[in-house]
Amino acid sequence: MPISLGELATQFGCELIGDPDVVVSSVASLPNAGPESLSFLANDIYKKQLPSTKAAAVILRASDADESPVASILHEDPYACYARMATVVCPPPSYAPGVHASALIAPSAKVADSAHLAANVVIGERSRVGENVYLGPGTVIGPDCTIGDDCRFIANVTLARSVEIGERGMFHPGVVIGADGFGNAMTPDGWVKVPQLGGVRIGNDVEIGANTTVDCGALDNTVIEDGVRIDNLCMIAHNVHIGAHTALAAMVGIAGSTRIGKRCLFAGKSGAVGHITVCDDVIVAARTFLSKDVTTPGTYAASFPADEARSWSKQLARFRRLGTLIERVKKLEKGGSRSSD
Amino acid sequence: MPISLGELATQFGCELIGDPDVVVSSVASLPNAGPESLSFLANDIYKKQLPSTKAAAVILRASDADESPVASILHEDPYACYARMATVVCPPPSYAPGVHASALIAPSAKVADSAHLAANVVIGERSRVGENVYLGPGTVIGPDCTIGDDCRFIANVTLARSVEIGERGMFHPGVVIGADGFGNAMTPDGWVKVPQLGGVRIGNDVEIGANTTVDCGALDNTVIEDGVRIDNLCMIAHNVHIGAHTALAAMVGIAGSTRIGKRCLFAGKSGAVGHITVCDDVIVAARTFLSKDVTTPGTYAASFPADEARSWSKQLARFRRLGTLIERVKKLEKGGSRSSD
Amino acid sequence: MPISLGELATQFGCELIGDPDVVVSSVASLPNAGPESLSFLANDIYKKQLPSTKAAAVILRASDADESPVASILHEDPYACYARMATVVCPPPSYAPGVHASALIAPSAKVADSAHLAANVVIGERSRVGENVYLGPGTVIGPDCTIGDDCRFIANVTLARSVEIGERGMFHPGVVIGADGFGNAMTPDGWVKVPQLGGVRIGNDVEIGANTTVDCGALDNTVIEDGVRIDNLCMIAHNVHIGAHTALAAMVGIAGSTRIGKRCLFAGKSGAVGHITVCDDVIVAARTFLSKDVTTPGTYAASFPADEARSWSKQLARFRRLGTLIERVKKLEKGGSRSSD
Repeated sequence: MPISLGELATQFGCELIGDPDVVVSSVASLPNAGPESLSFLANDIYKKQLPSTKAAAVILRASDADESPVASILHEDPYACYARMATVVCPPPSYAPGVHASALIAPSAKVADSAHLAANVVIGERSRVGENVYLGPGTVIGPDCTIGDDCRFIANVTLARSVEIGERGMFHPGVVIGADGFGNAMTPDGWVKVPQLGGVRIGNDVEIGANTTVDCGALDNTVIEDGVRIDNLCMIAHNVHIGAHTALAAMVGIAGSTRIGKRCLFAGKSGAVGHITVCDDVIVAARTFLSKDVTTPGTYAASFPADEARSWSKQLARFRRLGTLIERVKKLEKGGSRSSD
Repeated sequence: MPISLGELATQFGCELIGDPDVVVSSVASLPNAGPESLSFLANDIYKKQLPSTKAAAVILRASDADESPVASILHEDPYACYARMATVVCPPPSYAPGVHASALIAPSAKVADSAHLAANVVIGERSRVGENVYLGPGTVIGPDCTIGDDCRFIANVTLARSVEIGERGMFHPGVVIGADGFGNAMTPDGWVKVPQLGGVRIGNDVEIGANTTVDCGALDNTVIEDGVRIDNLCMIAHNVHIGAHTALAAMVGIAGSTRIGKRCLFAGKSGAVGHITVCDDVIVAARTFLSKDVTTPGTYAASFPADEARSWSKQLARFRRLGTLIERVKKLEKGGSRSSD
Repeated sequence: MPISLGELATQFGCELIGDPDVVVSSVASLPNAGPESLSFLANDIYKKQLPSTKAAAVILRASDADESPVASILHEDPYACYARMATVVCPPPSYAPGVHASALIAPSAKVADSAHLAANVVIGERSRVGENVYLGPGTVIGPDCTIGDDCRFIANVTLARSVEIGERGMFHPGVVIGADGFGNAMTPDGWVKVPQLGGVRIGNDVEIGANTTVDCGALDNTVIEDGVRIDNLCMIAHNVHIGAHTALAAMVGIAGSTRIGKRCLFAGKSGAVGHITVCDDVIVAARTFLSKDVTTPGTYAASFPADEARSWSKQLARFRRLGTLIERVKKLEKGGSRSSD
């Protein structure tokens, strides 16, 4: 949506250095920006791209404004400011209210008049869809679900059953919420399935990435609090509780009944075993897993970055001889060095 | 389904201590149970919740019965007993036979009259669907598939082609079975796809979790035997063979042509490389992978739990100096300690 | 498709030892082959299966021909030769042009007359579908997508929006391409979503496995070059660039903005952190992740194969005492061995 720099600066309370009447209609990175583009400089490693940018204006810190060859919008957090302004310049698509002829709504379900149901959407018994909700093609909402106002389901999302979602959530294709947790009791005749009877409760402003799964609880609910962000291909097991504003990068797995605090960050492929409690403000490095309760905020890690394969192979051999090495040191301590023999 | 404690005890051959005419109509954890709920005590860590429970009855070991403030159902394996009784008290939903108007059945396919096909189900040529099968919304059954009696496909499951499934299977949303295995031959012109012509054969009583994939075999079948349980987001590659009653937790990957024995347990994010054989009764710890044949039942592990990041960083540096340390010890053994100089 | 050995040998320029008029109509492994089957011997470990094969003919190296009890088709790379011949003997299914009555095409979309759109396919605004494309049941093509000639989408594939695909691509069920990347700016009020406005550009001859996700770029495109092969359950984050003919095995994760070279091989569960550059011809071992730029072709590794759990537990204890061990060696070097005391 074309908007003038003056309007943008006013709307977000930023100082503008430059012509307030210049209009921007797109956003772009510094090197690719044209005279109609809004750009930003948030990370010093891109500072060298600033002098040659052809953007209409650049969002940056006041301390960088001197080097801007174009209009500057000053903000102490240029990335967050860009995120907000970009949403104004390039708003997400809007959808007229309506239900596609191929969509199927169970008799006992209730769908707000302002909702948009695309092709082949299916809504189960007793489920409710709030105002301005967008349900993309192929989305299946099982029975007993509640979807709050302004949620968006891009396409082919599945809520199995008994999922309650707050407002303004965003759910990407392939997401599965509310499928049975992995509960099995071993018997002499093999596994007996433990019925999974809980639901899933998701707060406001939650975004869940493509092909991520969030299982229903065994008896009580699986809970995802407000503002949580989950990337693609993550696994949230039954009865997990994730605190507000925590973010999980791709391929993170949180095992059953574990409780994660608020504002935690899990990097790619990290995770936590089941039945532990993790306090607020914990950062977990890539490919690291938490194996016990974490009671102190901070950063946790335990991964080995790649090495040249032959070096690694030698290193692995050294690692395996660690017991022998310890014995050799013990012997030396007892005076057993060869020179003492 | 409401049922009296007496009937439950009789049906499962348990001793009941308490009024057999009390009726239960739900199941709940000890602290959340009300006077209409059946509960259970299987794990000692929840024993402290027993004295204050308000359940109608608690399934527990005889040795715990003294501390129960309510009726007791005695069983030496309370969790398995609970699993079975919960299925009676809270049975899975049942579906009337019928084919939704939007479901599409290929002319040469055969669907049992007692099956329920929900909205937008698609059945391919020559496929057969057994008695009492439930196929949820959006499920796609490709050509040449056979689905045994009493199977349930929750929603949006895909069988690509040539998948044969036994009875009483349960398949969660997003599951993909029978897609091509990853077979490519390198040539000077790039990769040439190796046609994947085998199928998938799945036994009775198999459950597969949301967004898990099971590839078809290259020439012969990929095989999953009776009673196997697979959690979400697992990957079973082409020509893998998984023995009866083995269980794989979430995000496990089994690479091509590997053969896993019976009653194995793979914890979350564990796995096995391709072309190996793993004997019966093997347990693999979380995030551990088997790299060669396993011929001895037992537990296998190789993962590093998270450490405080600065400690880990120091530890990583120490690990990298292991070669130097070994040299230093060697020198000491040769009498090269500084004090000897 | 039945074809004579003579025709096959001629078509692929191979030498045939045996009767050119024998017809093959299937392919099979050496032990399972019958008199109508074409088989192959590419790996020495299967050489012992050669003398007893009942195949019509075996593709093998000239040096192995003496031991073949049946007709031999000679090729220096039997596996690649088999891949090509198998495609002739067992061609992929072909589909008559046409649009199923339940498929939905947006008014501004263009679909080639020779394309086949199966049940419940949805094509969004301004999208274009090329000649001979097959879109399987439940496939959703969002707005502004372009699908090149001869592509195949097996079933339930989702292109979110703005995805451009070259010719002859193959996309398995559950694949999601073009969903939003994971871009969030932290603010005192929680996460602010950073609009993801780029698209995805995929070259010719690309194959992507079941339930893999490829995110759209934040501003510029995510790019996958010609001939890339990606297995199941992989994650390609926003603005990643994957060079031609690179192959990623199952469960590989490539984090945002990382650039992977040509002809790289990533084994199962391996990956790369974000914002790094990996040169051509790099091989990454299973479960290994690249943490920084790689400028030298070669093989990289950093994983610990499974050990018997009690051994591993001791080994982990030794590893944790590495700091102490180093101190002890330091003390010995200073003459601090007990025998010196």
